[in-house]
Amino acid sequence: MNLPDPIKNFIDHFSKLPSIGPRQATRLSFFIINSGKKEIEEIKKSFEELEKMDICEDCFFVFMPKNNADKKCNICSDNQRNHKIIAVVEKETDLISLEKTNKFNGVYFIVGNLQKNGMLGVEQKNRLTKLKNRITKELGGQAEEIIVAINPTTYGDFNATILSKELKDFTKKITRLGRGIPTGGEIEFADEDTLGNALERRI
Amino acid sequence: MNLPDPIKNFIDHFSKLPSIGPRQATRLSFFIINSGKKEIEEIKKSFEELEKMDICEDCFFVFMPKNNADKKCNICSDNQRNHKIIAVVEKETDLISLEKTNKFNGVYFIVGNLQKNGMLGVEQKNRLTKLKNRITKELGGQAEEIIVAINPTTYGDFNATILSKELKDFTKKITRLGRGIPTGGEIEFADEDTLGNALERRI
Repeated sequence: MNLPDPIKNFIDHFSKLPSIGPRQATRLSFFIINSGKKEIEEIKKSFEELEKMDICEDCFFVFMPKNNADKKCNICSDNQRNHKIIAVVEKETDLISLEKTNKFNGVYFIVGNLQKNGMLGVEQKNRLTKLKNRITKELGGQAEEIIVAINPTTYGDFNATILSKELKDFTKKITRLGRGIPTGGEIEFADEDTLGNALERRI
Repeated sequence: MNLPDPIKNFIDHFSKLPSIGPRQATRLSFFIINSGKKEIEEIKKSFEELEKMDICEDCFFVFMPKNNADKKCNICSDNQRNHKIIAVVEKETDLISLEKTNKFNGVYFIVGNLQKNGMLGVEQKNRLTKLKNRITKELGGQAEEIIVAINPTTYGDFNATILSKELKDFTKKITRLGRGIPTGGEIEFADEDTLGNALERRI
């Protein structure tokens, strides 16, 4: 059966968003139509609000600019933080997770979604160039420490190696996040790789 | 860490949509901001389009009204279809699936998402009252057949019984969809319930 154009359009658009497939987009369209015009207006408004957000020129995290001259996020414009220690993360949600620990007083750098083919994308390369330029200009050529905070997965390890190679000349020290048994986890149920890493990196 | 208000707002709104949780909504917000203002405008437009849709007064399926007087969907306004045979489905996507078979020439009635407590919601009751009134007025009090096309799950069976009880006085015949081994399925891998049903309903 032929669905009406507005629904087809909506499905086309929403299927492109991450982790939303055509089936979920279809269900969403029906749910939204049934919610009524007032609800649709509210959703539209929430998109309008997103348009006001900007992306930090230093770390690429999103932020709400106070005025037109405002180009940096709260973290990057915070003088209390150590700008010589930079945590390189893949995405915004990783930054949020690290920030929630309250254990990191450095700054961040979001490199953007990494590919699985062992190559850096155009966007990643551009961002890294900006980071290198900033380190050269603001930190005299070398950061104190760059933490390559990429997921400890097969692809993550691969990409972390590439990033470390790219950045090694721009920092005195390059580190990755510790690996081992998650806090609250049990040895009995840890997989071999995790346990192996926990052994190798024993403290 | 405190997320900016526009993002919090967006997450609040989107987490309310079916099968979108706060984590997915968070990732979505970052993805959308990074997509840029043009993409946000396009998404907003696709919501505006949805506002033009209406809900059929007979079957509650969504449709694109040709003018203000247009109150019925394509199926319900099609005189070639048998309006005396009514398939009661839970949701729009079930209607679409049945319609795709090209094996049904009757009309539909979307009762709306059924609860799991064995009670009909207010919305369901209102819709059923409208269906009963229509059968009384347009079909002389009884349909030829009502197919209670509700999922053959535990809750679905339960709800189908409730719906059958509600509708039995308004139809000459009340049926459910056939049950058995799915076409292409193998006896060896069918679960006991499915196989039991296939035996009981052998043809």
